[in-house]
Amino acid sequence: MHTILILGGGKSAVFLIDFLAKSCQSKDRRLILADIDLDSAIKKLKNQPNTQARQLDIEDIESRRSLIKEADVVISMLPAFMHPLVAKDCLHFKIHFFSASYESEQMREMKSEIEAKGLFFLNECGLDPGIDHMSAMRIINLAKSKGEEILSFKSYCGGLLAPDSEDNPWKYKFTWNPRNVVLAGQGTSRYIENGELKFVPYHQLFNRLQTIQFPGLGDFDGYPNRDSLSYRQVYGLEKIGTMLRGTLRRSGFCKAWNVFVQLGMCDDGFQMNLPEDTTLRQFLNAFLPYDPKLSVEEKLGNLIPDFDFPTWEKIQWLGLFGNDLLPMKKGSPAAILQAILEKNWKLYPEDKDMIAMQHLFQIKSTEGIKEIRSSLVSFGEDATYTAMAKTVGLPLAIAVDLFLDGDIKLKGLHIPVLPEIYNPVLATLENHGISFREEVRML
Amino acid sequence: MHTILILGGGKSAVFLIDFLAKSCQSKDRRLILADIDLDSAIKKLKNQPNTQARQLDIEDIESRRSLIKEADVVISMLPAFMHPLVAKDCLHFKIHFFSASYESEQMREMKSEIEAKGLFFLNECGLDPGIDHMSAMRIINLAKSKGEEILSFKSYCGGLLAPDSEDNPWKYKFTWNPRNVVLAGQGTSRYIENGELKFVPYHQLFNRLQTIQFPGLGDFDGYPNRDSLSYRQVYGLEKIGTMLRGTLRRSGFCKAWNVFVQLGMCDDGFQMNLPEDTTLRQFLNAFLPYDPKLSVEEKLGNLIPDFDFPTWEKIQWLGLFGNDLLPMKKGSPAAILQAILEKNWKLYPEDKDMIAMQHLFQIKSTEGIKEIRSSLVSFGEDATYTAMAKTVGLPLAIAVDLFLDGDIKLKGLHIPVLPEIYNPVLATLENHGISFREEVRML
Repeated sequence: MHTILILGGGKSAVFLIDFLAKSCQSKDRRLILADIDLDSAIKKLKNQPNTQARQLDIEDIESRRSLIKEADVVISMLPAFMHPLVAKDCLHFKIHFFSASYESEQMREMKSEIEAKGLFFLNECGLDPGIDHMSAMRIINLAKSKGEEILSFKSYCGGLLAPDSEDNPWKYKFTWNPRNVVLAGQGTSRYIENGELKFVPYHQLFNRLQTIQFPGLGDFDGYPNRDSLSYRQVYGLEKIGTMLRGTLRRSGFCKAWNVFVQLGMCDDGFQMNLPEDTTLRQFLNAFLPYDPKLSVEEKLGNLIPDFDFPTWEKIQWLGLFGNDLLPMKKGSPAAILQAILEKNWKLYPEDKDMIAMQHLFQIKSTEGIKEIRSSLVSFGEDATYTAMAKTVGLPLAIAVDLFLDGDIKLKGLHIPVLPEIYNPVLATLENHGISFREEVRML
Repeated sequence: MHTILILGGGKSAVFLIDFLAKSCQSKDRRLILADIDLDSAIKKLKNQPNTQARQLDIEDIESRRSLIKEADVVISMLPAFMHPLVAKDCLHFKIHFFSASYESEQMREMKSEIEAKGLFFLNECGLDPGIDHMSAMRIINLAKSKGEEILSFKSYCGGLLAPDSEDNPWKYKFTWNPRNVVLAGQGTSRYIENGELKFVPYHQLFNRLQTIQFPGLGDFDGYPNRDSLSYRQVYGLEKIGTMLRGTLRRSGFCKAWNVFVQLGMCDDGFQMNLPEDTTLRQFLNAFLPYDPKLSVEEKLGNLIPDFDFPTWEKIQWLGLFGNDLLPMKKGSPAAILQAILEKNWKLYPEDKDMIAMQHLFQIKSTEGIKEIRSSLVSFGEDATYTAMAKTVGLPLAIAVDLFLDGDIKLKGLHIPVLPEIYNPVLATLENHGISFREEVRML
């Protein structure tokens, strides 16, 4: 009998838990869900057979280790910085390890020991990273097998709202970690376009947009995200002329978000200590030049190039021109902005989110240069069974299921770029309605 | 007999060394100059009586401690991050400590032990910080003693070129640490204006300029520098409505420097790894959007608002539109930019630098509101005996001299904001030609 241990039963774990709990009914397995909040873990398991909830404070080394020792595979759904802790314990007790987070430098340092012990550690097996790797590699490897040359690869992904839940001017609400949304894009983003290396500082990022269209859903803004250059090696595309990974938002979002970036409101590097009676309007004014003759609105209009009505409306809707009290007085500008947004960008229970992903390839074939547009759209059911939770959790659940069934036989440290992983995972995802629609045209 | 130990005999130490070496001729003292480069230390001491050069690698704990043990006072002219190392040794061996650098948190942690041992540790006793504190506090305390209220205090300082050495379009060359010049202003600058707290992110900093005039020298750009808010407490001006500390550059410099900031070329947060044959033009292009139809010049013109001829000329003069090879291929954008600038902004031996400092006060007196403009201008003699070295080194040398003579009797951890320090130091500086010109007018 195999024991699966899931550490952390947060928002994005619901589909993962359901899938693996269900598998315990038909296969010789049991599932343990450990969370800091025992009641929440119990609720999430819904009394399904062969499942067990446990209370766990991950910092409590003794309890953590004794729990990990019980398992055959551990799935970490904890915040990313905790993965190395868990992975080290897994290494010590010879337990396989799975996560949906980026493979960290600390994880790479364990590589040879993972191999020596014959273990399987799989990271980046969620949505982005995860489904992006798998779906891209399937196209890349198919092209390579036909002797085709990949000239250009741009890939975009976004966690958004389903169109019928877009009921505010931003057409956005938080469907994952708000802090990560506020800090998204910080640092210098890097990509290559037609052989030219490109470096985009944060304060230019939300100007550097590309319009991305999804059949039937209309237009989205895509902006370059982090270090796309490093993916040339990951995907075996060292000589590619164009490689860009980007993030999607609804059209118009980025222009308004850029107001916060230009003002410096996303800065997480210092602490503000504002008077108790500070209003939202005064908070906004603190980032504007001093001018006793101009209003806050006028100063903002002067500072932001092309400050148009749709942008004004988004800022206004958040109450930033009004005299309500600021929800938080002490903290970094980013933390205070996050507090303002969390009041306004909350999902209603019946809201449906949407995951949109699109790969754009240009491939040189014997017939000429073809463009492949491969698009995934997934809708959530409600504010609990979100598309975010589904697309993050199912790939991970499926990979664990395949591994325990012996259908993935790999050992060592991996991300899902090998056909042994992505072929069966993508096939199973399709059975759960997560599939790409591919359009091909000759350029 | 007193022993003075100077650690680090770099560029900014020449006046400090000369002043203290000379004092050894008339007073019962000896001076030891310790540097990693023994020959350089020997040259700087010019065989003056009672002086001695020593070779010292500051990381060599044994040698460092045995040297410090010999001294009565230690002056650290080392890079700022090394001061705590030295200060801790001084504390251990009960030696007084002097520096021209900012009082660090680590230094503050030693405060009670410094007091308990009856030692005198003086930091921030150079130019900025140093002369700025002393000259400002003299005005502030005089006003307070007359019962006047200080409404507004803005203070600017810059290390610049004397007008007859301004022989490039930037009217700027490096007169101190180039890395600090390239990174200057990063983070969010903070000040208060007429009761409104103001926060300026780096990418807005070089737009937020004030024109500062010096009698006979014309116009300069002043931009807000770091955290001015914290100086309200340092200067005993907790209730002041306007407090701003800023940096001076020649008019037009900031607009052109802002091009680098907007492009992201001052980013020190990631490493570029560019091909060996990368040109200056390609480096510039790497920070511009991809557009096969536009030239580098056109793309830059589109990206930078109000890109005018004086700005274009400065960028062009650095060779950034040309096809010369980049002087450095691996490093952060900031490090590569620094390498480009170091080739072009080098002082010729006969070049003269200039220090300019200006305090602008608005003070409410019985006669009404008066404005005090207090200005310091100091010219260098050549590329060695710079105004920078003079204004950084002399305050420190004078403070040590006064302390050893018993004319400063303070103990504990200090910066020069007390009259016991600033009155005699400022008086002696005046004898060396470093004096403020004060203009007062009623508003």
